[in-house]
Amino acid sequence: MREAYHVELDRLADKLASMSGMVANAMELATKSLLETDLQLAEQVISDDEHVDDTRAQCEEQAYSLLALQAPVATELRKVLAVIHAAESLERMGDLALHVARTARRRHPDPVLPPEVTPYFAEMGKVAVRLARQTEEIIKTTDVDAARALESADDEVDNIHRHLFTVIMDKNWPHGVAAAVDTTLLGRFYERYADHAVSVANRMIFVVTGKMPGYNSDEDL
Amino acid sequence: MREAYHVELDRLADKLASMSGMVANAMELATKSLLETDLQLAEQVISDDEHVDDTRAQCEEQAYSLLALQAPVATELRKVLAVIHAAESLERMGDLALHVARTARRRHPDPVLPPEVTPYFAEMGKVAVRLARQTEEIIKTTDVDAARALESADDEVDNIHRHLFTVIMDKNWPHGVAAAVDTTLLGRFYERYADHAVSVANRMIFVVTGKMPGYNSDEDL
Repeated sequence: MREAYHVELDRLADKLASMSGMVANAMELATKSLLETDLQLAEQVISDDEHVDDTRAQCEEQAYSLLALQAPVATELRKVLAVIHAAESLERMGDLALHVARTARRRHPDPVLPPEVTPYFAEMGKVAVRLARQTEEIIKTTDVDAARALESADDEVDNIHRHLFTVIMDKNWPHGVAAAVDTTLLGRFYERYADHAVSVANRMIFVVTGKMPGYNSDEDL
Repeated sequence: MREAYHVELDRLADKLASMSGMVANAMELATKSLLETDLQLAEQVISDDEHVDDTRAQCEEQAYSLLALQAPVATELRKVLAVIHAAESLERMGDLALHVARTARRRHPDPVLPPEVTPYFAEMGKVAVRLARQTEEIIKTTDVDAARALESADDEVDNIHRHLFTVIMDKNWPHGVAAAVDTTLLGRFYERYADHAVSVANRMIFVVTGKMPGYNSDEDL
């Protein structure tokens, strides 16, 4: 019985890790669709998001049933609780990738981004996807040092995001208001995506240490 | 023993309800600071947010300890889980009110909003605060019908938000890019705030029915 319970807990962590992989792929494709004005990729991200939502529902359901049937305590309880929180954050990351894809689709066949901001998004996309892939590993290994290191990658995204704002707010921005609005919201999507990745990593630190290293902050605004 | 446990559960729900009241106040003051260019109100919202964060941490801690010590099942388990999720959403609502206040502070003594969009924000603010106050009641009563009715108030916010976008995107927007960027982000803060209120109400439906009426959606973009 005890044995089956640990197998179930491991399966739950695997499912959560796979969700992190899914939202990494989603953001990778969404960024490509944005930068290359690729409608097909955007459509793929949009239709794939259902799998993320389903996996989240499964994670939550399995976590609830573990709580009800096994009444875990200590580390096992923290694991189950971390899954519940992390699944929520990962679903949001999927939604944010979805928003990027939808923005690309909405403006197709026109590109969304003016040429001078595309490098910012290429870079934010790269770091965001890397964060999600590292989160996938951290869920599997519960490596506290790796989880703590994620904060600095998140700082990278925040930095790019801040620079992006100075470009948009420049008095000589020649692309009009609509492009500024799209660029602003897109920047926010990447920034929030990275915040959520850090939040998932922090939940894994909580599993190991029993302490939360600060809640998902959104201080950079 | 059983008695003390139910007292604790009720106290937890009260604390959660008070959190909803706090974020309603925060958004009310933040909106006033925005519309009336009132720096003092903005500062108050910014400093009060700490209490929201503390209350969230307390809710989570107490919920965790109930799970560990009482191993609740059925409705009681759902109550504790709903608190865990709802506290997260309410903390986000507090953060979003904080963002509104910070935006007001950043532009002070200038107003953030061009005159033609202020009525949209007055209205979104009113509906958003009403949603949070209704959520406070719904947490106390777990009234499923009231919780379901919240969706339509959220639709109101979404509608105003959509109209707002057509105003910003109008080719004749005369206020420049910086004002458009601020207005865009502020609109998003109100929209997300309302989404989270619905999400909290949905968690209360889950307590009663055992079914989640759809996850916190962010479809309106």
